[in-house]
Amino acid sequence: MDLNLRALTKVAGVLLMVLGGAMILPLIVGLIYDEPVSVRAFLVVVIPCLVAGGALAYFPKTKTHQFRIRDGYLIVSVSWIIASLVGALPFVISGAIPSYVDAVFETCSGFSTTGASILPDIEALPQSMLFWRSFTHWIGGMGILILAIALLPAMGIGGQFLAKAESPGPTLSKLTPKIADTAKMFYVLYSIYTVVEIILLMAGGMNLFDASVHTFGTVGTGGFSNYNYGVASFDSAYIDGIITLFMFLSGTSYFLYFLVLRRGPKAFLRDGEFVLYFSIVAVATLLVTLGLWGFGVYDSPLAALRYGIFQVVSITTTTGFATADFVLWPLFCQMILFLLFFVGGCSASTAGGIKPIRLLILGKLVRRTVELKLHPSSVTPLKLENRILPVEVPSGIAAFTFLYILLFFAGGILVSLDNVDFISSFSASGACLGNIGPGFGSIGPLSNYSVFSDGSTIVLSFLMIAGRLELFTLIILFTKKFWYPYG
Amino acid sequence: MDLNLRALTKVAGVLLMVLGGAMILPLIVGLIYDEPVSVRAFLVVVIPCLVAGGALAYFPKTKTHQFRIRDGYLIVSVSWIIASLVGALPFVISGAIPSYVDAVFETCSGFSTTGASILPDIEALPQSMLFWRSFTHWIGGMGILILAIALLPAMGIGGQFLAKAESPGPTLSKLTPKIADTAKMFYVLYSIYTVVEIILLMAGGMNLFDASVHTFGTVGTGGFSNYNYGVASFDSAYIDGIITLFMFLSGTSYFLYFLVLRRGPKAFLRDGEFVLYFSIVAVATLLVTLGLWGFGVYDSPLAALRYGIFQVVSITTTTGFATADFVLWPLFCQMILFLLFFVGGCSASTAGGIKPIRLLILGKLVRRTVELKLHPSSVTPLKLENRILPVEVPSGIAAFTFLYILLFFAGGILVSLDNVDFISSFSASGACLGNIGPGFGSIGPLSNYSVFSDGSTIVLSFLMIAGRLELFTLIILFTKKFWYPYG
Repeated sequence: MDLNLRALTKVAGVLLMVLGGAMILPLIVGLIYDEPVSVRAFLVVVIPCLVAGGALAYFPKTKTHQFRIRDGYLIVSVSWIIASLVGALPFVISGAIPSYVDAVFETCSGFSTTGASILPDIEALPQSMLFWRSFTHWIGGMGILILAIALLPAMGIGGQFLAKAESPGPTLSKLTPKIADTAKMFYVLYSIYTVVEIILLMAGGMNLFDASVHTFGTVGTGGFSNYNYGVASFDSAYIDGIITLFMFLSGTSYFLYFLVLRRGPKAFLRDGEFVLYFSIVAVATLLVTLGLWGFGVYDSPLAALRYGIFQVVSITTTTGFATADFVLWPLFCQMILFLLFFVGGCSASTAGGIKPIRLLILGKLVRRTVELKLHPSSVTPLKLENRILPVEVPSGIAAFTFLYILLFFAGGILVSLDNVDFISSFSASGACLGNIGPGFGSIGPLSNYSVFSDGSTIVLSFLMIAGRLELFTLIILFTKKFWYPYG
Repeated sequence: MDLNLRALTKVAGVLLMVLGGAMILPLIVGLIYDEPVSVRAFLVVVIPCLVAGGALAYFPKTKTHQFRIRDGYLIVSVSWIIASLVGALPFVISGAIPSYVDAVFETCSGFSTTGASILPDIEALPQSMLFWRSFTHWIGGMGILILAIALLPAMGIGGQFLAKAESPGPTLSKLTPKIADTAKMFYVLYSIYTVVEIILLMAGGMNLFDASVHTFGTVGTGGFSNYNYGVASFDSAYIDGIITLFMFLSGTSYFLYFLVLRRGPKAFLRDGEFVLYFSIVAVATLLVTLGLWGFGVYDSPLAALRYGIFQVVSITTTTGFATADFVLWPLFCQMILFLLFFVGGCSASTAGGIKPIRLLILGKLVRRTVELKLHPSSVTPLKLENRILPVEVPSGIAAFTFLYILLFFAGGILVSLDNVDFISSFSASGACLGNIGPGFGSIGPLSNYSVFSDGSTIVLSFLMIAGRLELFTLIILFTKKFWYPYG
C-alpha cells in the first residue's frame, strides 16, 4: 500500500467544500419558502462541510504530491461515494427521507444523474429538499464533464479512447491547448444550456422553481422532477418539445460542439458516433410512434409522435423523464425502449450507458469478422473516421461491454432475492447501471423503487456509481492487482 | 454469382438420401405400432427423397469440383433449411401437425437440437411421429459434430478457432492424422453414449421406445420428450440422475474426450473451457438448490439438489428437459436459469449457446483491460493454456457475442408484436437462439410455443438455425459481400 493519502485527503477536503458551498443554494430556497426545519438541516451539514473541508484541503501544507494513476481511480470513486453519503444527510436530518439507506439511494441517483427515486410521494418533500435533490443532477453532470476531460484521459480510462476516437486526434490539441481551457469551455456551454432552457421553460408557463428543477434534470440527463406525474403534469406540447430538444442536445458530445463551432455543421455528419446516435433515435422514434398509433394507444399519429419521441430521447440519453406511463404501452414499444437501455448518449456528454461509439466499433468488428470469414487471408485494420484504431481499443470496448452485461445480470440476480418479478428486477438493474431511472413492471415512471429491500437498494446504488464511472474506475478497486501491484 | 451449383446440388442430393434413409426407422416404428396413416405419410416422403436424392447426387457425373469457402457457407445453411422443410412433411401429410409452418418449426427445433415445441398435446401424436420428432435431435447432433470437425475448420468459421483454442494445437494433428478419422471417432463415441444411455434408462424401468426417445433428446442436447410432462412423468431419481449425467457428458467437448483417452483424466483439469463449464454448473447448482430449499419449494435439501442440478445441467447444456415447472420457482432461481441461457455447453459438443470458451476469453479480456488501466505501458498478450492467442480470436469472439445479443434483442422485439409479455418474448428469443427449448412466462416447460403467431414462429425457426450454425454461417448469406464479392 503506497497510496498518496495526502492527495486523497486534499481532494476529499475540496469536495466537502464544494458540497457545503452547493448546499447554500437549497438553503436559500428554504429561507424563501419559509422551511425552518430544512434550513436547519442544511446549516447543520453546510458548516461542518466547510470547516472540515477547509481543514483537510489547506492543512497540513505539504508540497505538491505526484498524482499517480492508482490514486486517480481511488479519488474518483471515493469522491462519488462521499458526495452521496454526505449529500444524503440533509434529507435524513430534516426527516424528509427518514431512512439513511433510502436517502443515500436518492442522492446517489442524483449525483450519478440516474433519476431513479425511492420516494412514493415526491410532492410531500419541502421545496428546498426538492431543489437539492435536483441540484445534485446538475452538479453530477458537471462533475462527469470535468472528469471526461481532466481526469479520465490522464488515467487512461474509458473516456480517454472514447474522446480520442470521437474527435480527430491531432486537431483536438489545436482546438484546446490546455485541459483547463477545455474544462472551462465545457462548463460555459453547460451553463449556457442551463440558462437557455430555464428561460424557454418559463416562456412555456413554468415558474422559476419548476423550470430550474426540470432543467437540472435535463442538462444533467438525470430525470428527477418535483411532481409525482413528472413532466406529464404540465401537459404541454411546447414543454415536451423543449425538454426533448435539450435532452437530445445534452446527450451529444461536448467535444463535438466545439468541432462544429470551428468547422461548421458538417462536423455533425462526419462524426460516426453522432450519426449512429441520431439514427438510433430516429429509427426508434419511428417504430415506437408506429407502435403507439398502430396498436391504438393514440388515435392521432401526431400525438403518438409527441409521446414517442419524448420517451425515446429520454431513455436513449439516459435522462428518464416520462410524459406517459410507458409500462402500459404495447409490448413492442416497451421492448424497443428496453433495447435503448443498452444504447445511452454520446461519449463526453452527461449521458450514461454503453454509448453509441462502443456499439459503432462493435458493429465494425462484426463486419470485419464477416469479411475475414469470406477472405481468411485478408487483413483489414479497424478504422474510425479514416484513422486506424489501435488493437487495444476494440479489445477494451469488448471487455467493457462484457463487464457491463455481467454487472447487469449480477445486479438483476441479487435484486431478484426480493422476489418482485422478472422484468422489474432486470430493468431495475439495467436502469441503474445505465443511469436511466425508471424501469418496467413495478418500477415504471409512475412507480418508484420502494418495492425493493435495503439490500437491493444498496446493490442498485453501487450499480449507479459503477455505470456513471464507466465501470472500470470503480470495479478496479475490487481487484487484487489494485491493492497489491507488486504482489 | 459464381457459386459452385453442381457441388450444391450434389450435397443436396446426398442430404435427401440421408433424410429418406433416416425416415425408414420411424416407418418401421409405424409398422410395429400399427399406424397405417403414418406409415403411408413416411412412404410418400421416403421414396421421392431417395429417388430425387440419388438423381441429384449421381447425375450428371461431373468431375470433382473445387470446394470454396463461399460454397461451404451456402451448403451448410441450405442443408439445415432443406432438412427442416423436408423433415416436416410427414407431420403434415399424416395430419399429426396440420399447419406446415408449425411442422417446420417443430422439425427445425428437432434438427437444431433446440427442443422447443409448438404442440399443446404431445401425447396425441402417433408413436412413429414421436419417434421421428426425437430422431431429428439425434441426426442434428451428429450433423453438428461432423460440421465441427469436417466443414467448419476448413471454412474458417467459429468452430475452427474454438476447436483450435480448445485442444492444444500441434497435438491435435498427432491424435487425428485425418479429418475423416476424427469424424469416425466422434460418431463412434456418439453412438456408444447413445447405446449406453438407452441400456441404463431401460435398467431404470423405461421401455425401449421411451428410452430411445429420451436418449436422442439427451445425447443430441435436444430435449424433446414423448410425454406432456416430459422427464417428470417417470418421477424417478435414478432416471433423473442418468439423464443429468449424460446431458453433462454431451455438453462436454468431444475433442477433450480423446485428449483424456490419451493423457488421462488430468486433461479435464488442464482444459480451461471444461473447468469453466464445470464451475458454472457447480455454482449455479449450489445457488439454485439453496434458493429452492431456502424459499421452501422443497423441504428436503436433497430434493432441492435433485431438481436443481437437473435443471441447471439441462439448461447449461442447452438440452431443455425439465423435471419441475421452473417458471413457478422463486424468482432468484429463475434468474440464475435465465443467466445460463447465455452460457451453453462446450465447443465441439452437440450443445449450442455462446459457449464457455468464449466467456473464458472475454473474461481474460476484462482482466487484461484492468491490467492495462493500472499499467498503461504494459503489453500482455492474451494466452489460453500457455499459448498466445492471435489478435483475431478475441476480436472474432467479441463480434460473435455482440451479434448474438443483437439477434437476441431483434428476435425478442419481432416476437413482441404478438403482445404476449415481456419475459415470454425475450425468453423465446433466447431459448431458440441458444437451442435450449423451453423459456419463461407463457412458454415454460409445461407450456409450448403455440401462443405465438405464424410470423413469430418463422422468426424463431430462423433463430434456431442461426444459433445452431454459430451465427455467421447463416448471417453471412445476408451480406452484400457474400453475393457480390468483387462488387
